[in-house]
Amino acid sequence: MTAAKTIDINCDLGESFGPWRMGDDDALLAVVSSANIACGFHAGDPDIMQRTVALAVAHGVAIGAHVSLPDLQGFGRREMAVTAAEAYALTLYQVGALHAFARAAGARLRHVKPHGALYNMAARDHTLAAAIARAVRDFDPSLWLFGLAGSALLDAGREAGLQVASEAFADRGYREDGSLQPRREPGALITENDLAIAQAMAMAREGKVRAVDGSIVELQADTLCVHGDGPHAVAFARNLRAALLAADIVVAAPGADA
Amino acid sequence: MTAAKTIDINCDLGESFGPWRMGDDDALLAVVSSANIACGFHAGDPDIMQRTVALAVAHGVAIGAHVSLPDLQGFGRREMAVTAAEAYALTLYQVGALHAFARAAGARLRHVKPHGALYNMAARDHTLAAAIARAVRDFDPSLWLFGLAGSALLDAGREAGLQVASEAFADRGYREDGSLQPRREPGALITENDLAIAQAMAMAREGKVRAVDGSIVELQADTLCVHGDGPHAVAFARNLRAALLAADIVVAAPGADA
Amino acid sequence: MTAAKTIDINCDLGESFGPWRMGDDDALLAVVSSANIACGFHAGDPDIMQRTVALAVAHGVAIGAHVSLPDLQGFGRREMAVTAAEAYALTLYQVGALHAFARAAGARLRHVKPHGALYNMAARDHTLAAAIARAVRDFDPSLWLFGLAGSALLDAGREAGLQVASEAFADRGYREDGSLQPRREPGALITENDLAIAQAMAMAREGKVRAVDGSIVELQADTLCVHGDGPHAVAFARNLRAALLAADIVVAAPGADA
Amino acid sequence: MTAAKTIDINCDLGESFGPWRMGDDDALLAVVSSANIACGFHAGDPDIMQRTVALAVAHGVAIGAHVSLPDLQGFGRREMAVTAAEAYALTLYQVGALHAFARAAGARLRHVKPHGALYNMAARDHTLAAAIARAVRDFDPSLWLFGLAGSALLDAGREAGLQVASEAFADRGYREDGSLQPRREPGALITENDLAIAQAMAMAREGKVRAVDGSIVELQADTLCVHGDGPHAVAFARNLRAALLAADIVVAAPGADA
Repeated sequence: MTAAKTIDINCDLGESFGPWRMGDDDALLAVVSSANIACGFHAGDPDIMQRTVALAVAHGVAIGAHVSLPDLQGFGRREMAVTAAEAYALTLYQVGALHAFARAAGARLRHVKPHGALYNMAARDHTLAAAIARAVRDFDPSLWLFGLAGSALLDAGREAGLQVASEAFADRGYREDGSLQPRREPGALITENDLAIAQAMAMAREGKVRAVDGSIVELQADTLCVHGDGPHAVAFARNLRAALLAADIVVAAPGADA
Repeated sequence: MTAAKTIDINCDLGESFGPWRMGDDDALLAVVSSANIACGFHAGDPDIMQRTVALAVAHGVAIGAHVSLPDLQGFGRREMAVTAAEAYALTLYQVGALHAFARAAGARLRHVKPHGALYNMAARDHTLAAAIARAVRDFDPSLWLFGLAGSALLDAGREAGLQVASEAFADRGYREDGSLQPRREPGALITENDLAIAQAMAMAREGKVRAVDGSIVELQADTLCVHGDGPHAVAFARNLRAALLAADIVVAAPGADA
Repeated sequence: MTAAKTIDINCDLGESFGPWRMGDDDALLAVVSSANIACGFHAGDPDIMQRTVALAVAHGVAIGAHVSLPDLQGFGRREMAVTAAEAYALTLYQVGALHAFARAAGARLRHVKPHGALYNMAARDHTLAAAIARAVRDFDPSLWLFGLAGSALLDAGREAGLQVASEAFADRGYREDGSLQPRREPGALITENDLAIAQAMAMAREGKVRAVDGSIVELQADTLCVHGDGPHAVAFARNLRAALLAADIVVAAPGADA
Repeated sequence: MTAAKTIDINCDLGESFGPWRMGDDDALLAVVSSANIACGFHAGDPDIMQRTVALAVAHGVAIGAHVSLPDLQGFGRREMAVTAAEAYALTLYQVGALHAFARAAGARLRHVKPHGALYNMAARDHTLAAAIARAVRDFDPSLWLFGLAGSALLDAGREAGLQVASEAFADRGYREDGSLQPRREPGALITENDLAIAQAMAMAREGKVRAVDGSIVELQADTLCVHGDGPHAVAFARNLRAALLAADIVVAAPGADA
């Protein structure tokens, strides 16, 4: 008997701020296995972090810090020329802040995932990626680091001695080298839900994806990212989970006890 | 043989922000036994927190989180109508952020002290004080809570099961009920250094202070606060420490190993 | 022939921030005659201010600056101990920022209304109110100042030589002295739309309101505030406007040309 | 008789924030002819803007808005991927905010200068530069736009119909194409005061500068930037002014009445 295949489903959560709401966190937490919770730099505030951690605990979902550049207005999506030293410090700050809510709730912090522009910068800039990985390792070497499949961030995480989860996207087009098709290019977004689920299934079962040029590319998919916004986000996440379970694939956070 | 008397000297540190400098942290860390380090809400930023924690570690000074209302422009000195729930969450957030830098530096967080307006509000508002104490306890029940001698914050800390340090001021006038003389009243500030040191010595040796009306008041002084700003701050702190040592009083953080 | 009665309908608008949406500005601008536009301190950012001003211009709605305490997370609803000098400066800053968008759009700034906690503080604190009124006057003495009927803010505005608009609420209960019933007391909110419209009609036609104790109180109502949030906000505002028009009351911003 | 040569000396001012001080604004305002005043995005707050404008008025120095990316911690020095539309809106916001203080003080706003990273980005990115220039023009077409000699910003300003002032630096090395020697290269900074003043004099008298490779380059210098920080900033600015006056060069803001 071989061990069942396992994959994680992660989602960005806790992205409300002050009086403003974003996403249906409660519904999504019923579906995903890992929650990337905003830490106040691109979204989230102490009240919302506390509430989101409590919700994640109630749903038994693994809690991760979704660390960002300091850009609330831009939602952390605008690249900013931070130094590696600044990236180290802002990662530590946000990881610590979220950890406090997990600890006070009797839960553990399980992973860290950079958000938005920081995620993209860390995917291609090894120096920046190494600073982020070092911050995570210096705080708690048992944390998992989530990053784009094939990215500098995963390399940096491994070099820092961290366990890493390679992230793949059901609804994004890939290029023949395994990188994401840029958003302005044709095929960047897979808007047909059936196709997105088919892509996720190929990733989860075979570690493969059909690139926009038609070629088949190897892609390590430890965790699938689902989006929390958009009118069909929750329905899509539910369908994805159901498809995985129907294929006897276990949905669980990385490192979770069987 | 009786145990030596022990008292703590604490100082607010890490109060620079971005490109702006405040205080001579390095000189003060050579004198004090506890550092209250700003956590980014009234002062401090991730880079400065990292640097200040490293300095405190190098000097063997106990590290505490100096938690504040979110008011950078007002330096946390303007009272704000936060709810108890908000006070709980903002305390947890800031304690966690600072803890991360301590942990990454191989050090421990030792205490929490509210700053400025939050300190004053928590001194008189038991509901708010209880929320802050609960946040500290829920994060780590071994942390010490620093608060004004005789304040609601110390009561709340004890009720939450925390160890508390009663804070006294060498350079502030006291009233006959043990409260601070308001800053606008005569005798609020003791500007003569010799008098301030004499007051500190009476607090440390006898647990007493002469109030502004001349009466002698009992006052528990576990930790003496020295200020980091002003041209003579460092010299005064040095003189205070020397006077305590000359009187065979040990200067050490609360709970420090002998 | 007597002049037709005129009343203003104002609404808080431009209360989105960064990626977060709030309110149906476009629908509300089709109904109201004055827009209080957030200036970045409690809501709004430069992009949203520009967009909201453009919408207001397109709808021919009078543009006002909705100035606030600096508290984005708390949406400007938490009282803060700002000095009169600070209130002067933050009013000037926000009025100037919004004025720039109006001017660039070829429009005029028409009024200023403090928001949330600042509105409430200025209603009862004459020193604070005077500072706000002075800032408005020093910027442009032709601006209208909006404030709670019977408040210190209106007095201060008049003393500063400004034209003031006395604001009344269709959906809030009043006390026998003309002040608002506090939100925690019974009758504070009028949730039945027909009653709210009846109250607004009595205010507009007779300058009277029935207080929560049943007595009839005189109340100057130059401008009626409608809320932008809540599922029925737009429908209520439309009904209010229709009721006013059906009673031959002109809906127009204060000082608007006939 | 030929008209006397005229040149402007500008300095970045009002760069304190909240409790933190930066620069000796009072001393510098006695020397310079144009003040670039921070608008709250990289430094400055409403209180400091009001105070700095009052000081500039008292010294008869021309008031300009020093507009920045929104990055207080990074002092506006970290490049950020803002869109042209965002640059337009943030310029308008800050220009408007500073204008309000000038207007309330009975003074006029005279120029706009982008700060730090925004200055550098606008020097090389024509789309961004055009957005900034359009914001200035849409607010007040009589404002001067300050930008790096030979930069895209000056081109964009001229295309928008603005009057532009070409800025040169006494203490920065230039390359043979008239651009600044990057800070990491040899000769980037001219630390010898006599050499810096000699460079400024050549710029002011002949419109020429000796590049780091020894060649002589034409350089339009309408305004010379002096720095407010550093221990010798004030002394250097005084010496520069004295040297210009001794050479019969008038020191005055662009467009100032003779």
